[in-house]
Amino acid sequence: MKSLTEYVWFNTREKQEFINITDKISKIVPRSGIKEGLCLVNTMHNSSSVYINDPDRDLVTDFENWLEKLAPHDPPSQYLHNKEGEGNGEAHLRKQIMGREVVVAVTEGKLDLGTWERIFYGEFDGQRQKKILVKVIGE
Amino acid sequence: MKSLTEYVWFNTREKQEFINITDKISKIVPRSGIKEGLCLVNTMHNSSSVYINDPDRDLVTDFENWLEKLAPHDPPSQYLHNKEGEGNGEAHLRKQIMGREVVVAVTEGKLDLGTWERIFYGEFDGQRQKKILVKVIGE
Amino acid sequence: MKSLTEYVWFNTREKQEFINITDKISKIVPRSGIKEGLCLVNTMHNSSSVYINDPDRDLVTDFENWLEKLAPHDPPSQYLHNKEGEGNGEAHLRKQIMGREVVVAVTEGKLDLGTWERIFYGEFDGQRQKKILVKVIGE
Repeated sequence: MKSLTEYVWFNTREKQEFINITDKISKIVPRSGIKEGLCLVNTMHNSSSVYINDPDRDLVTDFENWLEKLAPHDPPSQYLHNKEGEGNGEAHLRKQIMGREVVVAVTEGKLDLGTWERIFYGEFDGQRQKKILVKVIGE
Repeated sequence: MKSLTEYVWFNTREKQEFINITDKISKIVPRSGIKEGLCLVNTMHNSSSVYINDPDRDLVTDFENWLEKLAPHDPPSQYLHNKEGEGNGEAHLRKQIMGREVVVAVTEGKLDLGTWERIFYGEFDGQRQKKILVKVIGE
Repeated sequence: MKSLTEYVWFNTREKQEFINITDKISKIVPRSGIKEGLCLVNTMHNSSSVYINDPDRDLVTDFENWLEKLAPHDPPSQYLHNKEGEGNGEAHLRKQIMGREVVVAVTEGKLDLGTWERIFYGEFDGQRQKKILVKVIGE
């Protein structure tokens, strides 16, 4: 069994941002030399997500509006987590909706994604250094 | 390390439908010859889900009502994604709630599921061809 | 390829409870002898979750309040699932928000978690025996 572990860093300009990272991950897989296996991609933070959805930029805005409805930022005092000065309570909740990780099949040496599946990094409390982990195992 | 990759197709009669696929997946695992490993089951579309929950048909109706509340279909104009003629904005959001994939342990050659765990395909924009991916790796 | 399968039992005092199980899982990994691989941790029930978030106890209260808003317990009659006498309809929905499983990388023989990532067992219908599955595969 072979394996490859890589860490990828992000430092978003906005507090909330959704970044298509499909190409970045696709380029990591061949470095593993793995033809058949699994590729785990996960955020290493509790205020961001790795998820798979459509590349349409309008959908990103739909996600922003929707997350603001399901887990609103304001007022920050509604979250006990914020009482010691943190202001990112909603980010921890949004992470649960959008997810921490994706596991993607590797088939014939490539990410085995559907036609419109794209891997996204979803940042809910950005403007600082964050990282994700990519781990490929297989043969 | 061994591996097996299979694709399973669906074409639902309804726009939204929840299908118990546990038996289908259970029958794929023995074809891999794998005794100990992991089984990934994921939708390859952004408007459907693979998830695990109870086989109770009433619960399916509860999910339908709940998803309609959290990510309503009407009015379609509330989703920017719909502005070019698409009408499935809510389906992309529902997928995030219900999830893209499940990873199930394979133990002694079988899916290692809890007593009431059943694997479901959740369709949110059906009446057309969709597929899921099943990948088993292990030894 | 090596593998290790373990089951961990819970019997919570409260109906809803969130338990930090990071140490428990961390101690299982070395028993596998695996240096590089993947660790699957999943609930085997449809009314509880395994998820990763911050160890802050206040955040646990935020999750409780939030889940009560997104999938309220009362009135139980709002869920068809409850009509045969079950009273845990909301628990099945909360599981979808918080998630069934996490897949964590194993790197150099340890769980490869971010600084503030902690693995939690989230119970939504407790006061009875429940179990989770831990499966490590790799080499």
